[in-house]
Amino acid sequence: MTPKLPALVCALVALAASGAAAQTPTPIADRYREAATRIIQTAQADSAAWDRIATLTDTYGHRLSGSRALEDAIDWMLAQMQRDGFDRAWTEPVKIPHWVRGQESAELVSPRRAKLHMLGLGMSVGTPKNGITAPVLVVKSFDELTARAAEAKGKIVLFNEPWVNYGATVRYRTGGASAAAKVGARAVLIRSVAATSIRSPHTGTLVYDTTVAKIPAAALSTEDADMLARMAARGQAVVVTLKMEARQLPDADGRNILAEIRGSEHPEEVVVLGGHIDSWDVGTGAMDDAGGVVASWEALRLIQRLGLKPRRTIRVVGWTNEENGTRGGTGYRDAHRAEVDNHILAIESDGGVFAPKGFGATASPAAIEMLREISTLLAPIGADDLSIGGGGADIGPIMQLGVPGLGLSVEGERYFWYHHSEGDMVDKLDPAEVAKCVATLAVMAYVVADMPDRLPRGEPMRRQ
Amino acid sequence: MTPKLPALVCALVALAASGAAAQTPTPIADRYREAATRIIQTAQADSAAWDRIATLTDTYGHRLSGSRALEDAIDWMLAQMQRDGFDRAWTEPVKIPHWVRGQESAELVSPRRAKLHMLGLGMSVGTPKNGITAPVLVVKSFDELTARAAEAKGKIVLFNEPWVNYGATVRYRTGGASAAAKVGARAVLIRSVAATSIRSPHTGTLVYDTTVAKIPAAALSTEDADMLARMAARGQAVVVTLKMEARQLPDADGRNILAEIRGSEHPEEVVVLGGHIDSWDVGTGAMDDAGGVVASWEALRLIQRLGLKPRRTIRVVGWTNEENGTRGGTGYRDAHRAEVDNHILAIESDGGVFAPKGFGATASPAAIEMLREISTLLAPIGADDLSIGGGGADIGPIMQLGVPGLGLSVEGERYFWYHHSEGDMVDKLDPAEVAKCVATLAVMAYVVADMPDRLPRGEPMRRQ
Repeated sequence: MTPKLPALVCALVALAASGAAAQTPTPIADRYREAATRIIQTAQADSAAWDRIATLTDTYGHRLSGSRALEDAIDWMLAQMQRDGFDRAWTEPVKIPHWVRGQESAELVSPRRAKLHMLGLGMSVGTPKNGITAPVLVVKSFDELTARAAEAKGKIVLFNEPWVNYGATVRYRTGGASAAAKVGARAVLIRSVAATSIRSPHTGTLVYDTTVAKIPAAALSTEDADMLARMAARGQAVVVTLKMEARQLPDADGRNILAEIRGSEHPEEVVVLGGHIDSWDVGTGAMDDAGGVVASWEALRLIQRLGLKPRRTIRVVGWTNEENGTRGGTGYRDAHRAEVDNHILAIESDGGVFAPKGFGATASPAAIEMLREISTLLAPIGADDLSIGGGGADIGPIMQLGVPGLGLSVEGERYFWYHHSEGDMVDKLDPAEVAKCVATLAVMAYVVADMPDRLPRGEPMRRQ
Repeated sequence: MTPKLPALVCALVALAASGAAAQTPTPIADRYREAATRIIQTAQADSAAWDRIATLTDTYGHRLSGSRALEDAIDWMLAQMQRDGFDRAWTEPVKIPHWVRGQESAELVSPRRAKLHMLGLGMSVGTPKNGITAPVLVVKSFDELTARAAEAKGKIVLFNEPWVNYGATVRYRTGGASAAAKVGARAVLIRSVAATSIRSPHTGTLVYDTTVAKIPAAALSTEDADMLARMAARGQAVVVTLKMEARQLPDADGRNILAEIRGSEHPEEVVVLGGHIDSWDVGTGAMDDAGGVVASWEALRLIQRLGLKPRRTIRVVGWTNEENGTRGGTGYRDAHRAEVDNHILAIESDGGVFAPKGFGATASPAAIEMLREISTLLAPIGADDLSIGGGGADIGPIMQLGVPGLGLSVEGERYFWYHHSEGDMVDKLDPAEVAKCVATLAVMAYVVADMPDRLPRGEPMRRQ
């Protein structure tokens, strides 16, 4: 059928418009399209990544810094990596904090007796053996605490700011204890930093201000925090007994775990990618961050299986102690300081391996342009977004020395439902989504490691 | 502007068509439109219902049959009802089962030691003091258990059927224990009957088959059940220690709580509505079912406040012991047997007071027609659906004697996230949605109680 003239004109105009809007194919993307297609197809054809996350987390459980489970998990991973046939698999020692939770509880004593659902905050000090029993002062914000400072002395302060977003709300977890200590509080409770709750408290680290007394700190489930706030609003005297055995032991011997495929032309140049192998001592740390470290590892294995021989070295790292010290990230920087200038790119996955959207990038305008071009190869799985700003806690130390950084970005709607809670287990991850994350990491790492030009450095672009 | 002729014809045709499709206004709906509008507007103007649910549940906590909290809550409610100025507020004695949970735990012993997140099932027997330690046989269904019956002897059977819907999945909670006992199991675990989980186990009643041994039964969180299933699928020996102090005490003295506005013309004719005042011993039973009982009570209070004087009596009942015996419902039937023939309609709310959609009805075709007409008055708040089939556990006993029954139907998507779990607290309910439920219950109860014709009885319509 021959289309009539006006329809034909319309079609041509539409075609021209769509051509103008789409990314013009460029040399790098063209050169790697076939490899990217193979990577994506092969990654999606099996569920080895999800299975490994499940095996790791079911077998070793949670993996807090200083725990036997963490070191056992690293031993298992090392043995597996050696079997995977990489050019090298090894560990590097790092001294890590050794905080232990012990037994803990929070009980409502007045206006009625009830068990409160709580988790002590990581790095908190404990209470005396018989606990701290005190009236509760409920505030919504630091500003309200300042305004009511005179009421805080001798009390347990409860920060009950409802969820806004992680960055806004987590301030009470990190800084609430010292803010309350400054006005004479004996302990602090925070509303869990969580988007949704089924009476599920969320732990996470606090940071003490060394100029004031360290007081014990715990998170209540959002339900319990809200209930105490309602009781206080009714004018009832709210009294709580908080008991925590939490304490800090001497630093422990920890390890980063590493594996690499040596570059065929520039083995001294390194693309590093990974996640963190430690977790909080709740759930099994499947989402945060066994998923990130296993997806990175599987990305390397996929490149290996496909017989791709990158010009530069691709190195996977399972950083230790991200949760309560970031000693894995700083230890990696220190151990590899001599080769940091040859780190071409650092990629971190620590936001859950849900359906990938692409990456957030901290890099120069010239590097961003190349990364955007490479990202077009990920359009078939919807992971072609390359936004400005991103990285991660573990690659932060080398990014500060000038290494361009990428953070894997995912559909993270449910991330803060499970984050740092007992619910962080492998069922929250979907095998098909994990496989897409593997593909996304593998394509990006491989192309940057293999492309003729070195990814340029320079002053990072800023988010507008 | 004068429309051209063809457009005018089209508009007229459309108008005629829409007129034909819409509900033709009829005498009952017309007669009560003004009252319905006042009820809906007044209900939506305040949040007293939500506040009362919060006060009730925060103050008394959960309210299991036989507990002091349940009776204290009833005393509080009675005092409030007497202050509300109804024609009568009173309680009626009912003997109720007295099951107590005691301490309980489930620990994974092999392939690694870990605490499992569990809740014993209501009415379960306990374990010996040192618990039951046994290998776990994981099955997906009753059929699989039958096929593997020879493997079950001496073991703990875990039913791990993933969530389908409540009706389909709850069979393992009610019947799992006796099915496992029949093939020689020592205890049973079920995957929690839940649509979403943050490591949150869900309790609920079981029913023992009296022809086989009673064995202890508990629900694991879906995460724990899945983990055990994965371990078994890997060929690992899964061993669990289950400890439960659960036991049955002699029946306790319970009460239904009632209040009514006496009918001005036919005080002997009754429209009864309500929910259940007891709850499981987890969370605070705000959704299941403080919400239903308080919304019904507030509906009566609203009718009272508006000075509406129905021709027939409207009675609110807080039934006791719905969760583990339904003795409130059967007790009501027995205490009011002489007036059951004069029960015009029974309405129950026990599916959560989320945004109301309308009612499910068990009634004769003639009654359905009238109820559908009344339902049109609820269109302004989207609660005008009147579907065939519905009622509730507490009104079931009088429905079996011929009383037409309605169950409030709501947007229940999240109901089974919190149902019978520690997460069932008042924050799950929205004040505006609760107010709409109050309006929906009040309009239906008032119109049926006041309309000139008595709602007809007869063989109920069946769902097609």
